[in-house]
Amino acid sequence: MDTNRLEAFSDGVFAIAITLLVLEIKVPPSEALGLGLLHLWPSYLAYAISFIVIGAIWINHHAMFDWIVRADHKLLLLNTLHLMFIAFLPFPTAVLAEAFHARSRQDVATAFYAGTLTIIGVLVTAMWWYAASHRELLNDAISPEQAKAIGKRFLIGPTGYGLATILAFVNPWLSIALFITLNAYFLWPRRPQVTS
Amino acid sequence: MDTNRLEAFSDGVFAIAITLLVLEIKVPPSEALGLGLLHLWPSYLAYAISFIVIGAIWINHHAMFDWIVRADHKLLLLNTLHLMFIAFLPFPTAVLAEAFHARSRQDVATAFYAGTLTIIGVLVTAMWWYAASHRELLNDAISPEQAKAIGKRFLIGPTGYGLATILAFVNPWLSIALFITLNAYFLWPRRPQVTS
Amino acid sequence: MDTNRLEAFSDGVFAIAITLLVLEIKVPPSEALGLGLLHLWPSYLAYAISFIVIGAIWINHHAMFDWIVRADHKLLLLNTLHLMFIAFLPFPTAVLAEAFHARSRQDVATAFYAGTLTIIGVLVTAMWWYAASHRELLNDAISPEQAKAIGKRFLIGPTGYGLATILAFVNPWLSIALFITLNAYFLWPRRPQVTS
Amino acid sequence: MDTNRLEAFSDGVFAIAITLLVLEIKVPPSEALGLGLLHLWPSYLAYAISFIVIGAIWINHHAMFDWIVRADHKLLLLNTLHLMFIAFLPFPTAVLAEAFHARSRQDVATAFYAGTLTIIGVLVTAMWWYAASHRELLNDAISPEQAKAIGKRFLIGPTGYGLATILAFVNPWLSIALFITLNAYFLWPRRPQVTS
Repeated sequence: MDTNRLEAFSDGVFAIAITLLVLEIKVPPSEALGLGLLHLWPSYLAYAISFIVIGAIWINHHAMFDWIVRADHKLLLLNTLHLMFIAFLPFPTAVLAEAFHARSRQDVATAFYAGTLTIIGVLVTAMWWYAASHRELLNDAISPEQAKAIGKRFLIGPTGYGLATILAFVNPWLSIALFITLNAYFLWPRRPQVTS
Repeated sequence: MDTNRLEAFSDGVFAIAITLLVLEIKVPPSEALGLGLLHLWPSYLAYAISFIVIGAIWINHHAMFDWIVRADHKLLLLNTLHLMFIAFLPFPTAVLAEAFHARSRQDVATAFYAGTLTIIGVLVTAMWWYAASHRELLNDAISPEQAKAIGKRFLIGPTGYGLATILAFVNPWLSIALFITLNAYFLWPRRPQVTS
Repeated sequence: MDTNRLEAFSDGVFAIAITLLVLEIKVPPSEALGLGLLHLWPSYLAYAISFIVIGAIWINHHAMFDWIVRADHKLLLLNTLHLMFIAFLPFPTAVLAEAFHARSRQDVATAFYAGTLTIIGVLVTAMWWYAASHRELLNDAISPEQAKAIGKRFLIGPTGYGLATILAFVNPWLSIALFITLNAYFLWPRRPQVTS
Repeated sequence: MDTNRLEAFSDGVFAIAITLLVLEIKVPPSEALGLGLLHLWPSYLAYAISFIVIGAIWINHHAMFDWIVRADHKLLLLNTLHLMFIAFLPFPTAVLAEAFHARSRQDVATAFYAGTLTIIGVLVTAMWWYAASHRELLNDAISPEQAKAIGKRFLIGPTGYGLATILAFVNPWLSIALFITLNAYFLWPRRPQVTS
């Protein structure tokens, strides 16, 4: 089975999840609208972070499926599981916004959010390691060394997000700063020097 | 008419339905957020089950349209009817989560959910039987015996889900266990040994 | 400009509008869940009607764009306007369900629903007449006589729905029966006898 | 990297954002339904404006990606940022409708709406200027003079919307009239006279 269908379906889920995020932002009462709109900053921040997070995962998903050229059923399952947590993201996003809005339990909310990202990171890494250990799924131009190097890079995600999850209980803002930094890093995916 | 359009439209509905599921999960009040998030377990469970159910149906839909290579209007109608119940699934999912949350009428909620899956199973089977009895719609490589064998396998869905619907009134958890088992089975679609 | 992009975008809007319909159905309170689910019949009916209506329009949109092979900007605008009312349909659907649920002002709700369908019908017809009078947009295999014959068939939609809008004030059920009949008719699109 | 994926993903976000707009329109109480539906005119107006705005941006996005034929990572980032504000539009749309409904702070609501459009206009322009200054991303048939001429045209958007944002505090209706006019203008994208 080639990966076109899997990618198109994944793209659909990414595009929908990223667009549903806005539904969590509620219109403030119309008296004092200006102030009301300003007070929604936690919602805007959570929206922007999640949009960039999903955007970054999408871009990396594509880079990964430039290297993975065939899918078997186990990979399909891993991808479905991975999409399950992508599509779940609007919920931790709303939880995060609400906690910062109510100024209450920001630690739990941030940990919940970062925890979801950790699981996504683990599943992305698992997809790569699975594909890398079934070389018939990979692009022929990728050597075993390159596959291993890429795999190491994929470990940054779950490790970083796992750290952010713990850090949330120390200081939620530090945790948020960490996953913004991680995404800034992810948004420049570096392709392997594939020499043909 | 070839099936590309039908498949693309179906994929769209699958991707949207699967992603809308999360909208049914409501943010708990921010005091005692940690506990509130834990208490949402019925919503997470219902989300996960429906995600896997829709994912499994999607994978099988694809397998089916590897075999069905042309569509006539009746097949198009059957497919539309089938999508009508796929797109409906977020509602029984919300009903299921709510009942387990309120610890009230889990039997009715589970039966309603399993009943919707039964109808989907019947429609999927009907699509296959219709295509199998109009051989110009099928891939030439499939022999009548293979078509019949595949058709028998498709009966497992509506039968199993029908049983789960009845079982819900005996014990909702038993019913849920049954449709989780069924999906675990479905997620490994076995292709017919098409010998060319 | 060829029509692939236009069709893909339209398909997206159709698929999303059809899948959003379910969001209008609200979970009943969990005591007396069985009865509550039964009392939702107006929501199920409205859901089913709108699903079939959008499905039928989608199928006919495709048939139309088998004949229309090029798009200019005016056609693009007409199509966008037409999608604006397709994407609007979840709202009259919710209005219809609510009125039948509350047993109050079913006439207004049905007329509002049928009125929306009338506008869609007018815009579909306008798209065809526009394309038919700019023959460079059409498939070469279609003769002017065929284009005219197809155009006449497209008039059935707005006429029938217009009638249903008026009929709603006489008897809402009669109006609903009329647009169910119309859709049963539309769901068997007849292709022109294109002789090459 | 070619632009197919980027365009398909963008189309998905456009199609979803445009279709989510309807979710902001709430069913009026069923007594006095006729009047209730009429009183929703600010919602209909806001819906129509946003639909046309997103439609116009979509059409221009396509025109732009007829000229931009390759994408690098910075362009991908700019496009993601741009989609972030497209997907955000249902929120200012709801704010606008609510303010006109409550007849309160229409100036703030209109400025918020026009401000969002200004940011979108700035990002669209930035995408073009970036591509135009990296000629390997452009279609070879476009001369530097044409690229510059197109770039000037793109300045109309952010300038016009910026003006509308300020104008909102003078008179919200004047501001709305301005962005309706701008969109009427945008909806007729003029292609450059590309002579091969």
